[in-house]
Amino acid sequence: MSKHVKIGIDLGGTRIKLGLVDAKGKVLLRREKDTPSRQGRSVIIDTIVDNIEAAIRDSGLRKKDISGIGIGVPGPVDSRRGIIHYFPNIKGWNNVPLKAILERRLRMKVNLDNDVNAMALAEHTFGAGKGTENLVCLTLGTGVGGGIIINGRIYRGSTMLAGEIGHIPINEKGPRCNCRGIACLERYIGNRYILERARKSLGRNITLEHLSGLARKGNKKANAIWIDVGKKLAVALTGVVNLLNPDMIVIGGGVSKAGDLILGPLRKELRARPMKDQARRVRVVRAKLGGDAGIIGASLL
Amino acid sequence: MSKHVKIGIDLGGTRIKLGLVDAKGKVLLRREKDTPSRQGRSVIIDTIVDNIEAAIRDSGLRKKDISGIGIGVPGPVDSRRGIIHYFPNIKGWNNVPLKAILERRLRMKVNLDNDVNAMALAEHTFGAGKGTENLVCLTLGTGVGGGIIINGRIYRGSTMLAGEIGHIPINEKGPRCNCRGIACLERYIGNRYILERARKSLGRNITLEHLSGLARKGNKKANAIWIDVGKKLAVALTGVVNLLNPDMIVIGGGVSKAGDLILGPLRKELRARPMKDQARRVRVVRAKLGGDAGIIGASLL
Repeated sequence: MSKHVKIGIDLGGTRIKLGLVDAKGKVLLRREKDTPSRQGRSVIIDTIVDNIEAAIRDSGLRKKDISGIGIGVPGPVDSRRGIIHYFPNIKGWNNVPLKAILERRLRMKVNLDNDVNAMALAEHTFGAGKGTENLVCLTLGTGVGGGIIINGRIYRGSTMLAGEIGHIPINEKGPRCNCRGIACLERYIGNRYILERARKSLGRNITLEHLSGLARKGNKKANAIWIDVGKKLAVALTGVVNLLNPDMIVIGGGVSKAGDLILGPLRKELRARPMKDQARRVRVVRAKLGGDAGIIGASLL
Repeated sequence: MSKHVKIGIDLGGTRIKLGLVDAKGKVLLRREKDTPSRQGRSVIIDTIVDNIEAAIRDSGLRKKDISGIGIGVPGPVDSRRGIIHYFPNIKGWNNVPLKAILERRLRMKVNLDNDVNAMALAEHTFGAGKGTENLVCLTLGTGVGGGIIINGRIYRGSTMLAGEIGHIPINEKGPRCNCRGIACLERYIGNRYILERARKSLGRNITLEHLSGLARKGNKKANAIWIDVGKKLAVALTGVVNLLNPDMIVIGGGVSKAGDLILGPLRKELRARPMKDQARRVRVVRAKLGGDAGIIGASLL
């Protein structure tokens, strides 16, 4: 194995993924565990440490052969100081200096960022966004996350909280969001809201996979839901395109598995609704690195 | 006069303003003329050249004592190549290489940018935004223009068209905008739309100054219009604040003379509607350099 190997960790609400990643973004070795979310913070940290040490053992490398560890986490962080502000979906992580904790235990260099920034970095460096200068990355899932690459680098904002595309309002008035905002994009197209709408429209509980399947088989009600998801996404992204004039929008996350059911109407709207020259420039593509984006991106932090 | 003197020109639809500006942003000498908009492009260019030469004569300096000329123009430009794409409000300026034309005629170095970028640069360097890192600048007038400073520098986007805050949609559905978009911010709070609304509400023609006067005297209909302008602005800016997590929003332009009639409701909404930490960070202030922002900013190009 080359010496330019890093460890990338994708800490999620349900799974911890870890990879040894080389300088070309190739994942040389993988480990994956359930996140022991209910057992509290220290058990999660132990799990991370154990898995890093196990991965190093498995690789046959020594610690000094690994040039760094990056961790993408599911919530806002101060990436400069390596402190987690909080996790919306895992309790007990308020103001945790995870970088310092891990560096002390592992005696290796550790960097943190939020998972969407890690994904944006991975897609920009090795994935769909290779060669672009200004890139906006979205993850469609429980929430709608965003990462922004500006002039080839992650843009973090003044308090490292930039990129909240899910909380762009798409109406003056509308339903209240968990974030306290009104009519946020996420409040319409977050996972659970799509499912809620499907339940009302179809009269029964249904998974997103099933909803996609129905739409592909020609079910008009199912298709109408996906079209509307694409259109609502387009309203928020019209603002982003007119504001940031990016080269590309990369779309990933679980909900994006609906693929062209969403991307079709989204692309159509994004050709028609933003200003002409901005619309002509921007390409809308699916993320390319799939489940590996998190660990590859983390290894680049 | 110091040798670090530059010429800044603010080319507007109605007036051409010119200033000799020193390294501290002080305007040492001013000239101002009507823009001969109806007489065509070459007359406008002649007017610019004549005024530059007259200003240099008046200053007692020689051309070689002036370290550069910057021009802020009322429309989209390719600032790298110095080419004007077009002016929305002056005919005959499609794809004009103004930088090359002026450099040939003046034998001096010339730089171009759009007027809102020039204003953002001025406010960031010498005005309300001094010391900020990430800044969003708005001009409220006939149109709603925007300039973005990111990490201390103008952010131009992939085809130099970034910053179109006026064309962020604030509703999924709504009136069509001149830009072809739907429910753009500008379509609600551009100059003429405010006046149209005032006419309908008050039953007569009225100026913006008069509308402000009425609101200050307690006229509820007039005040309701300004409150709504502030709220609509807040919807678009909530998206900007959640997306870019800026330090500051600077507001200038003719319509902003309504001052607290707009800023009051705007600030109130921007404390309540964006995500908490982003809302806590951002300050909303009026532009400080007033009519000089254009020439000062242009001198910095």
